[in-house]
Amino acid sequence: MAGNSFGQLFRITTFGESHGTAIGVIIDGCPPNVELDMEFIQSELDKRKPGQSKITTQRKESDSAQILSGIFEGKSTGTPIALLIPNEDQKSKDYDHNKDIFRPSHADYTYQSKYGIRDHRGGGRSSARETAARVAAGAVAKLFLKQKGIEVFAHVSSVGTIDAPIVDAPHLDQLLEIRESNIARCADPATANEMIEFIDAVRKAGDTVGGKVSCIIRNCPVGLGEPVFDKLHADLGKAMLSINAVHGFEYGSGFAGSEMRGTEHNDIFQPAADGKVTTLTNFSGGIQGGISNGMDISFRVAFKPVATVMHNQQTVDKEGNAAEIKGKGRHDPCVVPRAVAIVEAMAALVIADHYLRQNSYL
Amino acid sequence: MAGNSFGQLFRITTFGESHGTAIGVIIDGCPPNVELDMEFIQSELDKRKPGQSKITTQRKESDSAQILSGIFEGKSTGTPIALLIPNEDQKSKDYDHNKDIFRPSHADYTYQSKYGIRDHRGGGRSSARETAARVAAGAVAKLFLKQKGIEVFAHVSSVGTIDAPIVDAPHLDQLLEIRESNIARCADPATANEMIEFIDAVRKAGDTVGGKVSCIIRNCPVGLGEPVFDKLHADLGKAMLSINAVHGFEYGSGFAGSEMRGTEHNDIFQPAADGKVTTLTNFSGGIQGGISNGMDISFRVAFKPVATVMHNQQTVDKEGNAAEIKGKGRHDPCVVPRAVAIVEAMAALVIADHYLRQNSYL
Amino acid sequence: MAGNSFGQLFRITTFGESHGTAIGVIIDGCPPNVELDMEFIQSELDKRKPGQSKITTQRKESDSAQILSGIFEGKSTGTPIALLIPNEDQKSKDYDHNKDIFRPSHADYTYQSKYGIRDHRGGGRSSARETAARVAAGAVAKLFLKQKGIEVFAHVSSVGTIDAPIVDAPHLDQLLEIRESNIARCADPATANEMIEFIDAVRKAGDTVGGKVSCIIRNCPVGLGEPVFDKLHADLGKAMLSINAVHGFEYGSGFAGSEMRGTEHNDIFQPAADGKVTTLTNFSGGIQGGISNGMDISFRVAFKPVATVMHNQQTVDKEGNAAEIKGKGRHDPCVVPRAVAIVEAMAALVIADHYLRQNSYL
Amino acid sequence: MAGNSFGQLFRITTFGESHGTAIGVIIDGCPPNVELDMEFIQSELDKRKPGQSKITTQRKESDSAQILSGIFEGKSTGTPIALLIPNEDQKSKDYDHNKDIFRPSHADYTYQSKYGIRDHRGGGRSSARETAARVAAGAVAKLFLKQKGIEVFAHVSSVGTIDAPIVDAPHLDQLLEIRESNIARCADPATANEMIEFIDAVRKAGDTVGGKVSCIIRNCPVGLGEPVFDKLHADLGKAMLSINAVHGFEYGSGFAGSEMRGTEHNDIFQPAADGKVTTLTNFSGGIQGGISNGMDISFRVAFKPVATVMHNQQTVDKEGNAAEIKGKGRHDPCVVPRAVAIVEAMAALVIADHYLRQNSYL
Repeated sequence: MAGNSFGQLFRITTFGESHGTAIGVIIDGCPPNVELDMEFIQSELDKRKPGQSKITTQRKESDSAQILSGIFEGKSTGTPIALLIPNEDQKSKDYDHNKDIFRPSHADYTYQSKYGIRDHRGGGRSSARETAARVAAGAVAKLFLKQKGIEVFAHVSSVGTIDAPIVDAPHLDQLLEIRESNIARCADPATANEMIEFIDAVRKAGDTVGGKVSCIIRNCPVGLGEPVFDKLHADLGKAMLSINAVHGFEYGSGFAGSEMRGTEHNDIFQPAADGKVTTLTNFSGGIQGGISNGMDISFRVAFKPVATVMHNQQTVDKEGNAAEIKGKGRHDPCVVPRAVAIVEAMAALVIADHYLRQNSYL
Repeated sequence: MAGNSFGQLFRITTFGESHGTAIGVIIDGCPPNVELDMEFIQSELDKRKPGQSKITTQRKESDSAQILSGIFEGKSTGTPIALLIPNEDQKSKDYDHNKDIFRPSHADYTYQSKYGIRDHRGGGRSSARETAARVAAGAVAKLFLKQKGIEVFAHVSSVGTIDAPIVDAPHLDQLLEIRESNIARCADPATANEMIEFIDAVRKAGDTVGGKVSCIIRNCPVGLGEPVFDKLHADLGKAMLSINAVHGFEYGSGFAGSEMRGTEHNDIFQPAADGKVTTLTNFSGGIQGGISNGMDISFRVAFKPVATVMHNQQTVDKEGNAAEIKGKGRHDPCVVPRAVAIVEAMAALVIADHYLRQNSYL
Repeated sequence: MAGNSFGQLFRITTFGESHGTAIGVIIDGCPPNVELDMEFIQSELDKRKPGQSKITTQRKESDSAQILSGIFEGKSTGTPIALLIPNEDQKSKDYDHNKDIFRPSHADYTYQSKYGIRDHRGGGRSSARETAARVAAGAVAKLFLKQKGIEVFAHVSSVGTIDAPIVDAPHLDQLLEIRESNIARCADPATANEMIEFIDAVRKAGDTVGGKVSCIIRNCPVGLGEPVFDKLHADLGKAMLSINAVHGFEYGSGFAGSEMRGTEHNDIFQPAADGKVTTLTNFSGGIQGGISNGMDISFRVAFKPVATVMHNQQTVDKEGNAAEIKGKGRHDPCVVPRAVAIVEAMAALVIADHYLRQNSYL
Repeated sequence: MAGNSFGQLFRITTFGESHGTAIGVIIDGCPPNVELDMEFIQSELDKRKPGQSKITTQRKESDSAQILSGIFEGKSTGTPIALLIPNEDQKSKDYDHNKDIFRPSHADYTYQSKYGIRDHRGGGRSSARETAARVAAGAVAKLFLKQKGIEVFAHVSSVGTIDAPIVDAPHLDQLLEIRESNIARCADPATANEMIEFIDAVRKAGDTVGGKVSCIIRNCPVGLGEPVFDKLHADLGKAMLSINAVHGFEYGSGFAGSEMRGTEHNDIFQPAADGKVTTLTNFSGGIQGGISNGMDISFRVAFKPVATVMHNQQTVDKEGNAAEIKGKGRHDPCVVPRAVAIVEAMAALVIADHYLRQNSYL
């Protein structure tokens, strides 16, 4: 398995390079009779697409998704759903200067070493453009989860050292509304302003900066997740770590939890109201023993700063000789505002997959 | 797939409950002609086994591994290797008080909800006892990697808020020697003493504490890891997150990297010496675009405090009614000294698997 | 994936060599709350075990299965079920003469070439002894299917050129009773006698003979089987072809169907009685478009004659030089009477797996 | 896994319905640096496409394949190769009469029952149109195998009761030339004529007829195939049985082998010439113990007659009431001449996959 598929029962396979003809995805295992709302799918893609605000890359792509199969009279049929996104802005010549040179902290060197050949145009397969296919597939997963009442919400919780406070609301849609009201995609408006100003300064300096995305999954039924290796948080972790530029994942108490005592960390069960057992605290992040316990699932994802900067950098060429790479063209100062859509998509895919896996026993 | 298998080509499947007859593992895909040094396998198990020092649980298990298949005249034959570890200390009656009650932050409630039945004795399948099977399999993976010159080393880098400095040495064996000279399994002797004292105090207080394990993989060839979903760090992350009590994973610059600028985070390539391209810094943690670049692979794993504490706790019973759980019996004040062997085992399994995957193309 | 696992959701992994310590199987994905009737599991193994009658091999193995995990108070818990069968009759020295020589139509040459090492004792991993593990796992699958009312029945329908007429009965248990009343395991008593006499003559001649096993699956719900590649009959076919000595598989009209016209081959649908659509004929063998249609599933499996004969044969040694192999020791004149249990086991595993796969959508 | 993927390391996933926008395939795991000769790929598709002769269906499809990804300067890059075939002849209205009725021996009833929804136009996903995607992917597999010197050849060996003699030649290309000189795709010219005349008569009678395709794989290295479940012939069998209308598979001596004695069936090893061990006969069909032995791999595939006939037939509608289906429109009197390309494609995919699997150990 060459690594371009994800999921067991709700399974996606993506294809496509940054500057090839098209990118796309096959979803195999989407249950029948899910309404494939193309407007919703497109709106999800719009949240990830480049050029949407002054703090993202200026590459122009409409990222228009077409559906090629698996649909009949607006609904899924149980057969594979193929989604196609043609590439439009293929200024391949922009990349000729990268042909024989390895950009620092990009995948040029490793792809070349692994395969002995590479499509150097815009990063080829290693480009984050691939994640558009995931967002399209994730939108389908969300439509399935919606039928089950499960909600997925993510937002930018930090940029550089600017941290947002923890956000909450009776309905995640309320947080979504706040988030979409600002281009930083942070659900805390005051912090959002600070982030935007900071990213803009970083952009003007020709530099980039990392950040974190926090995610909440609500109304997930008890029992999702498989022991031993396919724990729910292990699959969520893999999903997130497979996103370009991600360097860390934690759920529930996360890294901070490693500094705590058991007596403070244990989530005390509360007697069932409405037949529903809850816990007083949620350091477990909604998952115990790898299985959802009905509380909110919560996790955080750390993104490193984008490697493309507008400064000249020392590097090597294909022969291993010293070379210099020029800082020019377009660049994305901070990836997290667009990454929110990708985090949500991957989370939805994991939950949809484990929903089906658990369902097979019932 | 019910989740008890890990890996694609070097693939393990584990079985067994804490208080059943035995636990064990089948390794399918180990290449032929690997010397199956049973003494080494046992010595790895000894590093994980309970009762080895005053700062671990006092449960007595010799964890003696038997090999049932896949071996001929001391070498692997390419057929499945089955390893069996009988359970010895099966004081099942100790657990009768847990039969109808859900222990806080354990998997009792979620297993019961998922399956409608559960082996409550010592946590059953959710017990960390399962990881002994992983350590046995990981030892076989290490024997394979040794043939290829690849080394894996982990140690306890923090307990609670006590952090060890970053350790390094020309040969990882040197660090291993230091680590094995203290029961905290920290490669910095001064910090180790501090940790031991602290864990002992926590133990006496009937409490538990979390910690972190850091891991280095050296001499990994360039090119391991598959785009897009099976990035090397994504599979390492899943491997680690599948270990009991793990709440976080980061590699290279990790969470701290999310606070950095691109200009400081980029790893500048150095002209090749001896035909080998290197980087000046290693914020990438030895992995770029999901593929190993030949530098040291480095990651950190966060463990929450063990849930079993020697204090009475409020909880609920099977019917969802309020109940109290007594703090009694044996407990493990801090899991990280024993977890070092598990982290190394899972890392070795991931690298062995990706080694074979990459090899299939060549 | 090195090929020792079968199934997606009801998944088995087997291990063990003919003359190693033990053989066994892990079942991962058996639903919880299946009663694990060990007496039934053993009775299934007894149908496959050697030495059970004068027309099978005289190797003595009790094939006693032990259950190591996944069981609690007699029921499956949803966790992996490990079954162990120790090897008893390990007369390894009997096989020293085979060490450096390749037996004709055995797997000695191909294993040696593939792996560069092999356990030559009794065929090692290539021995049909491995199928005992499948029969044990298949018995668990049958216990699960029994809960759903699904029945699996196979019998010997031909030995050499002796063909049994097609058998049928209102309940498959009636056929089972007839089959178990004779050592040929043919559900037609007259043909059974003929077969026994013939096999005995072949045995006395130091020779072997092939045969066919026919199988019926009744009360399979409509809808099992996945398009496109995992058609129900494609998975049944793979299951059967993976059994030692099998050279052919056909379902429904099979090879004879290739000689028919569409107008005679089409199965005409009958108006539903009791809400159940049926077909007038069943050339489809209960499967249309790869999906069960509720009619009896029927297929046939062709076994070649066993390669071990009591005659001297020309062959080559490890260096590729001419050599002679002596006909001596124990031999199995005809494998089909024992293979009936294996065919049923593999069929049950396929149906159990597809039952869970279909269930995941519902 | 919903069944639309095939292969482990050389893995394809297909999508598309008969009358949707397009069909296609993603190949994940094709090694880098394979020359993607689009002319060859198209010529393979032309052998399967409808309307190519008077004895096939008259549906008009050019089946023009486009390559969307995984290619750079004419060569594979190691990343997923997506191939797209737009649907042209979408006379969906032709199928309105089938909307609420189940065609005998088609998959209408089973798809409707399985999913509760179906695209009835031209069979939707159950249409053999899906196999065009396999042929495109198989052509890529062939290009890879060609680099290794491995050849795959199939031809029509029977139509109805008309059997061709066994064909052979020093080079399979010689047989290919004969085969392509007649529209029956039989490598024996005299039999071909007889077949063509017969199929034409069947066509005029508004009827259909089945047939068999025989396949040879030459120069396959020794050692391909994995014990126990993924035996080379088990994967070939599954591949063939997954093709629409296939009802049987046999390799080597096949069903006839079940009537033979061991002493006649055993393939006697011949002393190595040029370091290559061979066998005197080849009843093993080039595979022993599930592993290729270097001799020609040979197998046969039985196709039932196509279900669509130009006669009125009794059937039932969606409510299970009696109904009649009219014989009208276009029909394919005999599928085997076009199926030759599909058999070769699936065979090439299996061998490519097992080539990579074996390579991973080396």
